[in-house]
Amino acid sequence: METALLIISHGSRRAASNEEVFALTSRIRELTDGLRVECAFLEITEPTVQQKIDELAAAGVTDIQIFPHFLAAGSHVVNDIPREIEAGRKKHPDTSFSILPHLGSLTDLPTLIFKQLRSCK
Amino acid sequence: METALLIISHGSRRAASNEEVFALTSRIRELTDGLRVECAFLEITEPTVQQKIDELAAAGVTDIQIFPHFLAAGSHVVNDIPREIEAGRKKHPDTSFSILPHLGSLTDLPTLIFKQLRSCK
Repeated sequence: METALLIISHGSRRAASNEEVFALTSRIRELTDGLRVECAFLEITEPTVQQKIDELAAAGVTDIQIFPHFLAAGSHVVNDIPREIEAGRKKHPDTSFSILPHLGSLTDLPTLIFKQLRSCK
Repeated sequence: METALLIISHGSRRAASNEEVFALTSRIRELTDGLRVECAFLEITEPTVQQKIDELAAAGVTDIQIFPHFLAAGSHVVNDIPREIEAGRKKHPDTSFSILPHLGSLTDLPTLIFKQLRSCK
């Protein structure tokens, strides 16, 4: 079973904002021992989620783990991402999809913020 | 000099999303040794940034450190937050304001995401 981590972000009209997501994706990829790590966008920016799901499935990935790169469990996390996954499932019934906890819910986030802010002083 | 950390978030129509910000604020406050840690919202949700700045200044806080709780350096981070700070400065010329790096730029963020995702498997 080949696994990929797919980071889903909102997408922005500002190129610099999208670049932050691509850069984050690269840095997470570097931390893994060869895991395929990709990103896709819900709106505005390409690759779209469907483009990336199709690409991963075509490349033989059979297990796609989705990371919602969102701070809050708003409509994008609760409705849009599950809807995208459902569309992907219909096209690729042999691929397994799972949705990981969204960024804002990661329990170490407050500690990260506190430590990094302290180091800025 | 009394310092406060002011976490600025976007604000949401979904109460649960705002609750996530209040909860994050509480958790960061618990990590500090008595630092005043508050949150305020740019849109939709109260307290507004101006309400919170006025409250902190009235309480004798003379150094307000702003943390933009945003993933990307978009218009909210680049334009709206500095404009809010400028408005606060005019009302409270004896208060020092500084803007910390926004969440998406914290260098340990990729490591946090990677570690927590691995622990979910």
